[in-house]
Amino acid sequence: MDKPAPADHPVHDLIGGRWSPYAFSSEAVAREQVLSVLEAARWAASSYNAQPWSFLVGLKGDETWQGVYDCLVDANRAWASEVPVLMLSMAHETFPWNGKPNRHAQYDTGQAVAALALQATDLGLFVHQMAGFDAEAARTRFAIPPGHTLMAAIALGSAGDPDTLSVPPAARERAPRERGAVSTFTFAGQWGEEARLA
Amino acid sequence: MDKPAPADHPVHDLIGGRWSPYAFSSEAVAREQVLSVLEAARWAASSYNAQPWSFLVGLKGDETWQGVYDCLVDANRAWASEVPVLMLSMAHETFPWNGKPNRHAQYDTGQAVAALALQATDLGLFVHQMAGFDAEAARTRFAIPPGHTLMAAIALGSAGDPDTLSVPPAARERAPRERGAVSTFTFAGQWGEEARLA
Repeated sequence: MDKPAPADHPVHDLIGGRWSPYAFSSEAVAREQVLSVLEAARWAASSYNAQPWSFLVGLKGDETWQGVYDCLVDANRAWASEVPVLMLSMAHETFPWNGKPNRHAQYDTGQAVAALALQATDLGLFVHQMAGFDAEAARTRFAIPPGHTLMAAIALGSAGDPDTLSVPPAARERAPRERGAVSTFTFAGQWGEEARLA
Repeated sequence: MDKPAPADHPVHDLIGGRWSPYAFSSEAVAREQVLSVLEAARWAASSYNAQPWSFLVGLKGDETWQGVYDCLVDANRAWASEVPVLMLSMAHETFPWNGKPNRHAQYDTGQAVAALALQATDLGLFVHQMAGFDAEAARTRFAIPPGHTLMAAIALGSAGDPDTLSVPPAARERAPRERGAVSTFTFAGQWGEEARLA
């Protein structure tokens, strides 16, 4: 389902076209496509090029997929049961070369996942990230070492039919996308004062 | 200067083409282009659609630009003195509707900035984010409220001539881009075990 952003200023189709559906098809994602979305993450910018991101990748039917699925909250299990790829993103909180805190670890991991999602969009795929999962259960299940923060569970696949959704309702899937306008988060002079760019 | 990522798997030109130069042209960026890169940030994904990002935007010659510039460390001032747009990115650490911690605030702000950088790439512009700035000085200068974490200083502009660089040397500007391969950060079964996707 196309759901282009109602943008006030022109943005690239990938950026305007990316959105997070609940209705996924059970159709498998080709391994080459999974590699391409991870390759996109690879080339993100990061502070001191530390590349603090890592991913656990489950393909439907394998133990990793099941492990991620088992850690989801019920509300996410309700729509994610047929998603062909489930991943977890993690942020390494220290620089590997000196062990000092990397205060951009989460920020840079977000940058990597944003690129992953846009690459998926280019492939005709969709990404839906979830905050709703049991991070401590996932840490145990996948032996994730201390210092690597569990960030998001990530669904990847083709779009499905909104009419098959029980939770959330199809109406929500079809609702317009909403964001605060640029003027609400863009300041000059001091924080909270609108930058008059237009 | 084009410097496409030497990718192992196909990625979209925007993703492979984005890199962080030190050599910027002093040529101004059109306000419409500044608005487009901020619009791209606007449409990023965020946990509960909280949109935790904000930006201070300085255009060369205005007080905001000077304020950001003044907060940079010397090594960044050395190359950023002619950059036409200097910004700061901030992450709102709590949800605005209930004041509870938003553990994805920095991650989602990173996602927004990644989209901003790719939109810049599409416009033929470049972004260089900097960790090297005095965040507390910036907080005071711009009256940034508690709960909004200063993340990065962001240079935006057209590419310049690497031969004009004193710091860092032009050789570094021309060096190949490097990242760990997908196999180094993509795991299955348990963390640290390579996902065999190829």
